[in-house]
Amino acid sequence: MIGKSIGEVRIGDTAELSKTISESDVYLYAGITGDFNPAHINEPYAAGTVFRTRIVHGMLLAGFICSVVGTQLPGPGTIYVRQELNFSAPVRIGDTITARVEVLEIIPATNRLRLKTICVNQDGAVVLHGEAIVSPPLKKIP
Amino acid sequence: MIGKSIGEVRIGDTAELSKTISESDVYLYAGITGDFNPAHINEPYAAGTVFRTRIVHGMLLAGFICSVVGTQLPGPGTIYVRQELNFSAPVRIGDTITARVEVLEIIPATNRLRLKTICVNQDGAVVLHGEAIVSPPLKKIP
Amino acid sequence: MIGKSIGEVRIGDTAELSKTISESDVYLYAGITGDFNPAHINEPYAAGTVFRTRIVHGMLLAGFICSVVGTQLPGPGTIYVRQELNFSAPVRIGDTITARVEVLEIIPATNRLRLKTICVNQDGAVVLHGEAIVSPPLKKIP
Amino acid sequence: MIGKSIGEVRIGDTAELSKTISESDVYLYAGITGDFNPAHINEPYAAGTVFRTRIVHGMLLAGFICSVVGTQLPGPGTIYVRQELNFSAPVRIGDTITARVEVLEIIPATNRLRLKTICVNQDGAVVLHGEAIVSPPLKKIP
Repeated sequence: MIGKSIGEVRIGDTAELSKTISESDVYLYAGITGDFNPAHINEPYAAGTVFRTRIVHGMLLAGFICSVVGTQLPGPGTIYVRQELNFSAPVRIGDTITARVEVLEIIPATNRLRLKTICVNQDGAVVLHGEAIVSPPLKKIP
Repeated sequence: MIGKSIGEVRIGDTAELSKTISESDVYLYAGITGDFNPAHINEPYAAGTVFRTRIVHGMLLAGFICSVVGTQLPGPGTIYVRQELNFSAPVRIGDTITARVEVLEIIPATNRLRLKTICVNQDGAVVLHGEAIVSPPLKKIP
Repeated sequence: MIGKSIGEVRIGDTAELSKTISESDVYLYAGITGDFNPAHINEPYAAGTVFRTRIVHGMLLAGFICSVVGTQLPGPGTIYVRQELNFSAPVRIGDTITARVEVLEIIPATNRLRLKTICVNQDGAVVLHGEAIVSPPLKKIP
Repeated sequence: MIGKSIGEVRIGDTAELSKTISESDVYLYAGITGDFNPAHINEPYAAGTVFRTRIVHGMLLAGFICSVVGTQLPGPGTIYVRQELNFSAPVRIGDTITARVEVLEIIPATNRLRLKTICVNQDGAVVLHGEAIVSPPLKKIP
């Protein structure tokens, strides 16, 4: 239960996670965060917006990026330092989102990685993009 | 159900939301995102880390910021453009987090606001900070 | 709140529970167990499988059997000893499952019951079958 | 998103998943399955039982085994054929469970694996054990 140390990561390494976003995902997330913005939980209201239907909380998608970082690349033991998020397209209930993480830069002096972080939908459209700085787990010298 | 347009917002306006983070918040969030990083859901593992106990997903806290933006300042109809997040301290189950949003800059030319976004715990320690760019709702001219 | 003791059960006794399986059932179950197998939570992936759509976790169906055992036959106080499960057909979101339990054998020497346990869908097709061994609650002699 | 085919698995291969079981896990599981056995959701009742407190649904633990099978060993595309479960000790809310799967036998003629499946608690006590038969995903010949 320990992720990859900085010495085990290569530039270009990638990992990803995909999920079809359900109404229950959106509603549970609304319940946890209190984000009852009608764009997310009120269908008649949402039908009158430019999006035509309820949309998924953008920050929920960011959670899939963290999931990839914390469980796969670099994985358990990673400390999240910084995340920058640009929301570029709406996500509707029923869309399938793939969160992808790619190693852009390895900084041994400070034990940090710079990651490209992106979410795309089932049509390949980018819905969220940005970069993260994380500190991968240190490995004990035997 | 329509938030503040750019003309209704002043520099220095603030809004906030506070919540004591429960174990169920963390577990539901892990379930939605698939983030089964043992730092969040495995107490014996977490007891052996530098944090000494399970910690809350940092991105869950970011959801409280969105909640304030989407329901209060500027509120419904806002389009989230960009969020930058710096994670500065761990949050444990049972901590009480206050998410605060403050208007830093008003940009009428592009109908955008620059916001200071911060989360503090019950001791006033900053656990998350950064800035957001959002586009407040447009108001129809009567 | 005490179920049937061994003396109150007859061979051939049956009990059952039926539920239409919702997407939220499947998603919450995935969230509790961490089972993000794309067959359950990724519709485009699932559309490309032999099942043509997302399927329900088989072990979730087994939970309906336990529900019947623990609340009806023999009911509260029962100790589950053994369960054997054969998964014979896929279950899709929206299917209605009936879990049925039938007493096959009564073993007073060890205070155990052997049960036939089965789940069928709305068309009567068997999706799960097997047997269980349980120890019904002991009744105090007045 | 495709797991290991039979040719990629070796006897003795193992995989596992660990989670501290929360009250919310037990309550959501009760809600999904309708298993309102008071042993799981009624603390004063449970305090009067031999277990002294509420216990976790045994079949919920079996879900962790499926999670390992469906996401790791052999992973996505696996078809669950059979599972045998022996419940050997109670699990309390707050216990940390590790579900472990180990390949016992490889049967190429029928494309099946026989797996040892076990759950242990934080003290190493076996709470659930048995065997599974699964059919790993077939790989297309290029």
